[in-house]
Amino acid sequence: MNAEIISVGTELLLGQVVNTDAAIVAQALSGLGINLLYSAVVGDNEERLRAAVETAISRSDLLVMTGGLGPTADDLTKETTAAAAGKKLALHQESLERIQNYFNEKKVSENQEKQAWLPEGCTVLQNDNGTAPGCAFQAENGCTIIMLPGPPSELAPMLHHYAVPYLAQNQDSVIVSHNIHIYGRGEAPVAQMMDDLMDGENPTLAPYAKEGECMLRVTAKAPTPEEADKMCQPLMDEIRRRLGDFIYSVDVETLEELVVQELQKQGKTLATAESCTGGLLAKRVTDIPGSSAVFQTGCVTYANSAKEALLDVPHDVLARHGAVSEETARAMAQGIVKRAGADIGIGITGIAGPEGGTSEKPVGLIYIALSDGKDTWVAKRSPIGRTKSRQWHRHCAASQALDMTRRYLAGLPVLFD
Amino acid sequence: MNAEIISVGTELLLGQVVNTDAAIVAQALSGLGINLLYSAVVGDNEERLRAAVETAISRSDLLVMTGGLGPTADDLTKETTAAAAGKKLALHQESLERIQNYFNEKKVSENQEKQAWLPEGCTVLQNDNGTAPGCAFQAENGCTIIMLPGPPSELAPMLHHYAVPYLAQNQDSVIVSHNIHIYGRGEAPVAQMMDDLMDGENPTLAPYAKEGECMLRVTAKAPTPEEADKMCQPLMDEIRRRLGDFIYSVDVETLEELVVQELQKQGKTLATAESCTGGLLAKRVTDIPGSSAVFQTGCVTYANSAKEALLDVPHDVLARHGAVSEETARAMAQGIVKRAGADIGIGITGIAGPEGGTSEKPVGLIYIALSDGKDTWVAKRSPIGRTKSRQWHRHCAASQALDMTRRYLAGLPVLFD
Repeated sequence: MNAEIISVGTELLLGQVVNTDAAIVAQALSGLGINLLYSAVVGDNEERLRAAVETAISRSDLLVMTGGLGPTADDLTKETTAAAAGKKLALHQESLERIQNYFNEKKVSENQEKQAWLPEGCTVLQNDNGTAPGCAFQAENGCTIIMLPGPPSELAPMLHHYAVPYLAQNQDSVIVSHNIHIYGRGEAPVAQMMDDLMDGENPTLAPYAKEGECMLRVTAKAPTPEEADKMCQPLMDEIRRRLGDFIYSVDVETLEELVVQELQKQGKTLATAESCTGGLLAKRVTDIPGSSAVFQTGCVTYANSAKEALLDVPHDVLARHGAVSEETARAMAQGIVKRAGADIGIGITGIAGPEGGTSEKPVGLIYIALSDGKDTWVAKRSPIGRTKSRQWHRHCAASQALDMTRRYLAGLPVLFD
Repeated sequence: MNAEIISVGTELLLGQVVNTDAAIVAQALSGLGINLLYSAVVGDNEERLRAAVETAISRSDLLVMTGGLGPTADDLTKETTAAAAGKKLALHQESLERIQNYFNEKKVSENQEKQAWLPEGCTVLQNDNGTAPGCAFQAENGCTIIMLPGPPSELAPMLHHYAVPYLAQNQDSVIVSHNIHIYGRGEAPVAQMMDDLMDGENPTLAPYAKEGECMLRVTAKAPTPEEADKMCQPLMDEIRRRLGDFIYSVDVETLEELVVQELQKQGKTLATAESCTGGLLAKRVTDIPGSSAVFQTGCVTYANSAKEALLDVPHDVLARHGAVSEETARAMAQGIVKRAGADIGIGITGIAGPEGGTSEKPVGLIYIALSDGKDTWVAKRSPIGRTKSRQWHRHCAASQALDMTRRYLAGLPVLFD
């Protein structure tokens, strides 16, 4: 089954909004074993939209449209697509009632009502997170058309709860992928190590760079998920053999998710003391639902006075070595672990830039300490190669703290070369 | 001048990576007054890539390619595009030296060297943040082709520093846009209020939803930036008249950036005490370069014991009203402003979900307090409509805290209906 995506919205062509919808849909199609061959963006322009839809219907088995289902006048997707597919719109009473309930009003505006007009005979995909319903139907030539709302917070649940089951009915093979997440080795050296494994057709192996990390994806296609999974395993074993402890997870998508899981399993708590990362590490940990059981205290101490008052960093250490130093990072980790009564404490101090660097302490110099109240380890990040952004330095420092925590919890050496 | 973008990469079609590159390029083209009519994604497939490039060259004045310039075997963009445009590749000595310097090695691998092979006669766009250079050249039929590397951290600076100036040479009109950022009124009511202003052709007005906020964009096209800007002003004045204090900025893109600017102007400091937002507010403030001057202390206090120890929240308040209550939020803000010696203190406590809600205190119930040490204001967020995500609740609560700070600093009522 060959598919394409058309994302509708002038805001996409003007670059005001990033097309996350296409990625979300693409991932779901890939999971269903559907080949996505084209993904295009069209503005809120009836003529070009109609032409794009007609081409898609004529050459593909499945067309997924995202965006343009809303209440405003430039939301053209339904009218235009239905016309191109030879369908009329009809008022869908249940959807209208959902919209009325959403606004807690008996009578909604004409704009809002417009959202309940759907191609006649379609399968309605209800919107559990907003007002515009989606739909699925077949064009006269048999091409399946699915329309989903633009906001990712509405599109993603509708896709996973309603559109994917709709599509899954008709598939005779599935794709299974496993993501092998790696911290501490870059994409290029990892790709080189795996060079001889990358020519396979089924399963396939492909490397991906993530911000400050990298990932290998193993993918197999088979009639059932079980068979596809089984085909992946020997290749995954070989990758594990080659990369060892640098693999932080298989299919747990982020370091923070893995670390929260491990803390939960071991019944341990983490506390953080952040200077240059400014709360980013705490934020990433608490992004994970259920983190409140394992993360109870974090401090963001930009000012030296705050480092002294909240973390008991000795005045003398700050005066002698400066706020950005191995000694200060160490004292921050030791201070927070004690103050918070946690099992593991992290201290991070450094220069995220773009300002504030010197030749001795350049932008990108960051110290990351982990203390368990008894032992303390300090990693030093030095800027290498070309200039990186503030965001990059902050993200990588938080990632390294998470990886150190992961290593500590797994009983591995906390520091590595 | 009509343009199109082709983004290359199977990872985009599989949805493993979101196509931020297309948005970054689209924004830059829009700023140059270049009409972007098509934006497409093609996988790492030579045949389909070549077909897409040939179509683009035949119908557009400008083709911007993103991705596929890297060292690995599936990086096909240069070879395929050059062939479609009737060009050969040649080794660019200076680029090779840059790559050698990047790795600090005299001899780099064949894969790495591949990146220095560029279409003969092209203008090389140097990569200040990575290894793969970009390039600009003309196909035989006169279509301008620009190739940029895939990682956004490399693409964005190359685009802005080298590709945009290259393109600006040939433009006879410019587009100027102003973004009017609004907090406290949603996209639908704002669009309704502006309905009569949205039919203009030049300048144009368009509404956009942002996560928990909305934005109006005023855009004009003219021979010079000054003229275009002047055309925008009357419309912007009218919008200001209608929306008043709900406008938090024009062209300052985020609440956190605006708040840091205002704190800097007024020489004031902010301190934060976060429970359910878990460091997100501190993270957003410290995302802004230079924030260290106005933000010195933040606390993430998930546990009640941490609220007592770090913020002096009275045990009695927690016992009587619970951690998620107006009284606790108030005590958190008052505690942090005093402990940190800051001018403004924020306290946030609530239930971000997905677990932990009750019928009395449902997921999405969040209290946000602002204290200046003398007065304290508390806003209550109640969940309305359908279920929202943990990330959404956290983001909106942090945004509301920033908006309260903005209002306080501007001498406006801190709370509004």
